[in-house]
Amino acid sequence: MKSEHHFQVRWGDTDAAGIVFYPNFYKWMDDATHAYLAAIGYPSSKLFAEEQIGVPLLEANCAFKRPLLFEDQVIVKSYVEELHNKVFKIKHVFVKGDQNAAEGYEVRAWTSFKDKPKAQPIPDRIREKMMPKAETVEG
Amino acid sequence: MKSEHHFQVRWGDTDAAGIVFYPNFYKWMDDATHAYLAAIGYPSSKLFAEEQIGVPLLEANCAFKRPLLFEDQVIVKSYVEELHNKVFKIKHVFVKGDQNAAEGYEVRAWTSFKDKPKAQPIPDRIREKMMPKAETVEG
Amino acid sequence: MKSEHHFQVRWGDTDAAGIVFYPNFYKWMDDATHAYLAAIGYPSSKLFAEEQIGVPLLEANCAFKRPLLFEDQVIVKSYVEELHNKVFKIKHVFVKGDQNAAEGYEVRAWTSFKDKPKAQPIPDRIREKMMPKAETVEG
Amino acid sequence: MKSEHHFQVRWGDTDAAGIVFYPNFYKWMDDATHAYLAAIGYPSSKLFAEEQIGVPLLEANCAFKRPLLFEDQVIVKSYVEELHNKVFKIKHVFVKGDQNAAEGYEVRAWTSFKDKPKAQPIPDRIREKMMPKAETVEG
Repeated sequence: MKSEHHFQVRWGDTDAAGIVFYPNFYKWMDDATHAYLAAIGYPSSKLFAEEQIGVPLLEANCAFKRPLLFEDQVIVKSYVEELHNKVFKIKHVFVKGDQNAAEGYEVRAWTSFKDKPKAQPIPDRIREKMMPKAETVEG
Repeated sequence: MKSEHHFQVRWGDTDAAGIVFYPNFYKWMDDATHAYLAAIGYPSSKLFAEEQIGVPLLEANCAFKRPLLFEDQVIVKSYVEELHNKVFKIKHVFVKGDQNAAEGYEVRAWTSFKDKPKAQPIPDRIREKMMPKAETVEG
Repeated sequence: MKSEHHFQVRWGDTDAAGIVFYPNFYKWMDDATHAYLAAIGYPSSKLFAEEQIGVPLLEANCAFKRPLLFEDQVIVKSYVEELHNKVFKIKHVFVKGDQNAAEGYEVRAWTSFKDKPKAQPIPDRIREKMMPKAETVEG
Repeated sequence: MKSEHHFQVRWGDTDAAGIVFYPNFYKWMDDATHAYLAAIGYPSSKLFAEEQIGVPLLEANCAFKRPLLFEDQVIVKSYVEELHNKVFKIKHVFVKGDQNAAEGYEVRAWTSFKDKPKAQPIPDRIREKMMPKAETVEG
């Protein structure tokens, strides 16, 4: 399963160098993950309300290829690159026109907040949506 | 009671015009109100933990006199300008060197979050700290 | 001329009280003004590139009626409420469902950045777009 | 050369989960790099004003160990971990009390903005400050 998250660079996303201030790429990756979960039928708000499940970050990375500018139209293409027992790695590719502006990933843990936060095995119904082709990685 | 909140403009606070992106002034007013509450002996975190009291916004205003730039050292001088029964208006003056960069205010309600949020009369022990000189305004 | 700017509340817009952190309303007003200028045919990026014109803030205000929550779909309805010689006041109404969540305004100066920043009379071609019905206010 | 950047978590840094919204760690890494450059005698503002040198990002990474909360006092300890010909990798360790809250790094290019942006060899006077002990890595 892949999802696409579209956005336009806002004036407030820029800095005095005239380009996007880099931490904003992580905001967009976070947005893109929420969009991804909604696209597979499990919006994060519903996951939390119905199952007290959240997906906190273990790690996030981004490599910057080309600067983004005010008003740029950008697509973030997201897919799960690695699917472990309790953890997944979601890849995010920032596309502007026909070029990659950046490529990043987030590593997130499937976590129950019922009592104190505790990582849980990712349920099969979720795994099938994230990686329908039995591409599961051991972990 | 007056309080002072010191900060330095961060690179990420600027925008492509080379000056501070204006919504940041409201972030600093919010910081300054938290600093003010701590200065009078009632940090917002403690107020919430011990009394389930918060001070949500009813209104905020800022007038911009001079732009702020990366690395500027700024002082926000804060004091309660109006003290009503359940509501207070806190003034924030942004000082850079010997000049005012901006002047703003926030109107906040003394609110209990014990059940559903409900404005409460501001207790006397707080009123005395905010306006020791019987400057209370009717409201 | 009125314009509408649609957005959805992002996870990162919230704070530990579970609602939108209030300075974000000013980011959305800034976005809405850029959308307004684009809607009348003068996107801010084009105004700056072709005429070295910007519209810096003199003042901004917002009154908060109802909190916004993660994933809320919101429309900002914007129109010029006052049109002075060099300055305009743009009103922004935040609508969520059939309710107003907030109402704010920005006062901005029509400013040339050719040499040092200097306020300029707003040209007639702009005035006609902002207030087609001769509603101009003296100032 | 090591530097320390101290900060306190602001209310607006949190999200509806009650902890810091993760992109803020990258803002703090950016702050910490500016602090590092100032600590070695070359503040980024001065580098740009006098030499038209900037240090744009090639990559940034952060691993999150423990959540940060409102009002937490945090120290970011920064040092150059790898020093290549035109590129350096700066490590940032987030310390809260006696625990590491997060560990990240940024890879940045020593870049001249005199004409179009172009990476430059890092001058010896900078190298000596970043890695006084001949720890330079080939690259």
